[in-house]
Amino acid sequence: MSQSTTLSIDAMGGDHAPDMVVEGLALAHKALPNTKFIVFGRANEVAPLLAQHAGLSDVCELRHTDDIVSAEEKPGTALRSGRESSMRLAINAVSDGEADGVVSAGNTGALMAMAKFVLKTLPGIDRPAIASLLPTLRGESVMLDLGANIQCDAENLVQFAVMGEVFARHVLHIDKPSIGILNVGTEGLKGNDSVKQAAAILYETRLPIDFRGFVEGDSIGLGKVDVIVTDGFTGNVALKTVEGVARLFSDALKQELKGSIWGMLGALIAKPAIDSFRTRFDPRRYNGAMFLGLGGICVKSHGGTDGLGFFHAIKVAHELVVDKLNEGIKEDYARFSSEHHNTILDPTAAD
Amino acid sequence: MSQSTTLSIDAMGGDHAPDMVVEGLALAHKALPNTKFIVFGRANEVAPLLAQHAGLSDVCELRHTDDIVSAEEKPGTALRSGRESSMRLAINAVSDGEADGVVSAGNTGALMAMAKFVLKTLPGIDRPAIASLLPTLRGESVMLDLGANIQCDAENLVQFAVMGEVFARHVLHIDKPSIGILNVGTEGLKGNDSVKQAAAILYETRLPIDFRGFVEGDSIGLGKVDVIVTDGFTGNVALKTVEGVARLFSDALKQELKGSIWGMLGALIAKPAIDSFRTRFDPRRYNGAMFLGLGGICVKSHGGTDGLGFFHAIKVAHELVVDKLNEGIKEDYARFSSEHHNTILDPTAAD
Repeated sequence: MSQSTTLSIDAMGGDHAPDMVVEGLALAHKALPNTKFIVFGRANEVAPLLAQHAGLSDVCELRHTDDIVSAEEKPGTALRSGRESSMRLAINAVSDGEADGVVSAGNTGALMAMAKFVLKTLPGIDRPAIASLLPTLRGESVMLDLGANIQCDAENLVQFAVMGEVFARHVLHIDKPSIGILNVGTEGLKGNDSVKQAAAILYETRLPIDFRGFVEGDSIGLGKVDVIVTDGFTGNVALKTVEGVARLFSDALKQELKGSIWGMLGALIAKPAIDSFRTRFDPRRYNGAMFLGLGGICVKSHGGTDGLGFFHAIKVAHELVVDKLNEGIKEDYARFSSEHHNTILDPTAAD
Repeated sequence: MSQSTTLSIDAMGGDHAPDMVVEGLALAHKALPNTKFIVFGRANEVAPLLAQHAGLSDVCELRHTDDIVSAEEKPGTALRSGRESSMRLAINAVSDGEADGVVSAGNTGALMAMAKFVLKTLPGIDRPAIASLLPTLRGESVMLDLGANIQCDAENLVQFAVMGEVFARHVLHIDKPSIGILNVGTEGLKGNDSVKQAAAILYETRLPIDFRGFVEGDSIGLGKVDVIVTDGFTGNVALKTVEGVARLFSDALKQELKGSIWGMLGALIAKPAIDSFRTRFDPRRYNGAMFLGLGGICVKSHGGTDGLGFFHAIKVAHELVVDKLNEGIKEDYARFSSEHHNTILDPTAAD
């Protein structure tokens, strides 16, 4: 097999699909010339869009399907009745070995349910997690889970920690990523039973990981650790809190600068610096949440993103494939599991 | 009784106490000339600081005690062995009727435990909550609980909603504040049992409140509702996430502007606009978390704040006293309670 990667693409998921999907593909074609795409969706809508970009049709194999999973569809319904949907067929292409990974901007719950059903979870992983990179003062961190698992026990959190650690090594290229569990204080006595028990397990492991114990919410922006582990409820709220505060600051700064002639003049002179600031925190650059713990690479793009954002989601999937993330998780989790599973992680031994 | 208000002050709580406490008192004395203070702490340390500000000693009654609750002390230990501490004596002054409210920058857990023990909770309120104002795109919102209650059932969340609504009416002067429960999606099926059951109760109530259902984390910055209700774990993480992201943006903007001559020049010209932006989001302006649901006004200042921050905490306490917040909560909760308590909120009827 050559160095080329093949990704399957759900062309119909997302608020501005299929237009933004094809725009993303066009950007990806330029940045990743060795990558091929299998594109699932309504041929009459997608084909003319592909034709607008020179050479794009040559790397895209378009497969027609009429069926689409809507944004409102419940995961269970989508799983039962969406077997011919663009989302499902794109996932199937990974399990069939035709594609190395799948990208969709569609309904998150449906994508997770289908991906879990079709691709299965990796050995030892009970529940896949949604992970994303976030900008910090020190660079980038990865946070998980961001909403796949509303309630998590200690074992789930430990699995997230191991998966996140492997992810940070492979994708962020950090030799020994530091790991923290999100909590309401850094002292051992704080928090609920899940975080306390998970911390106890991670402190005891002989795996060569750099576990730093509990971190608080400000660690997300400050980048105190490379991997932030939390349950899907807290993680989802924290991620969206970051998004809201980013909007607040960006809009408020614009308001203040536009409010006076000196503000406008200063902003004009400092434009390159302000643009560089904006680029650094452009949410589209952080688009592409990874579903970790599945037997195949699956990346979820934000539903409301544009072509640039979808391109970043494709780049994330490409990187996960090239870096062989899943092999890393499998190996590390097997090591962790053989050491711990029969003792500390035995649910019957838990209090 | 005259219009004057008396506040009791724990002079020894906080990282930079008693210096920053006295600086805060000096600022408060100028801004709130009719306010008197009973100041608890080590007289040999506090008296010379008070003497540095003209007229300050005239409005401060200094009461000596050697004992201090440390930042590391567990709430239970502080409750048992801190009976002569500056924190405890300051709280006692409220229950004794000498002061209208208390302000401390000390150990949060100890302050809550002592305040709950001494001041008791209001009728119908099981657990007090920590609330704070937050800046939003629309102005200000109040969020609660911020860490007093790590696990919350539906009834706790409903009580927080009622208290937060009264708070927003009295302190933010909003006629009919909108209320949302923080969740991982806005659809009714999302989230854990507590948020779903709490939402069901608030949708059914005949109290004239403006309940908007679920909101996501981005509502915090965007200000989609006036009152954001959540459990103490999620609320604490979200609040600290806001703090971390604020630091990240402020530091990154500074870095970019200082990175080039044009950036520096532009920043100089736009200085008034940038200063106005900084002032608007200065965390010290949002210092002063309210303990809602207690039989007395108790405000917790951030432990790491300075004089300006402590002054804002004093202002918050002053406002709560003047606005008769607790009378409002008592009345509203009694109305809510008589309507609902024997039916929906009966714990034996809950599933």
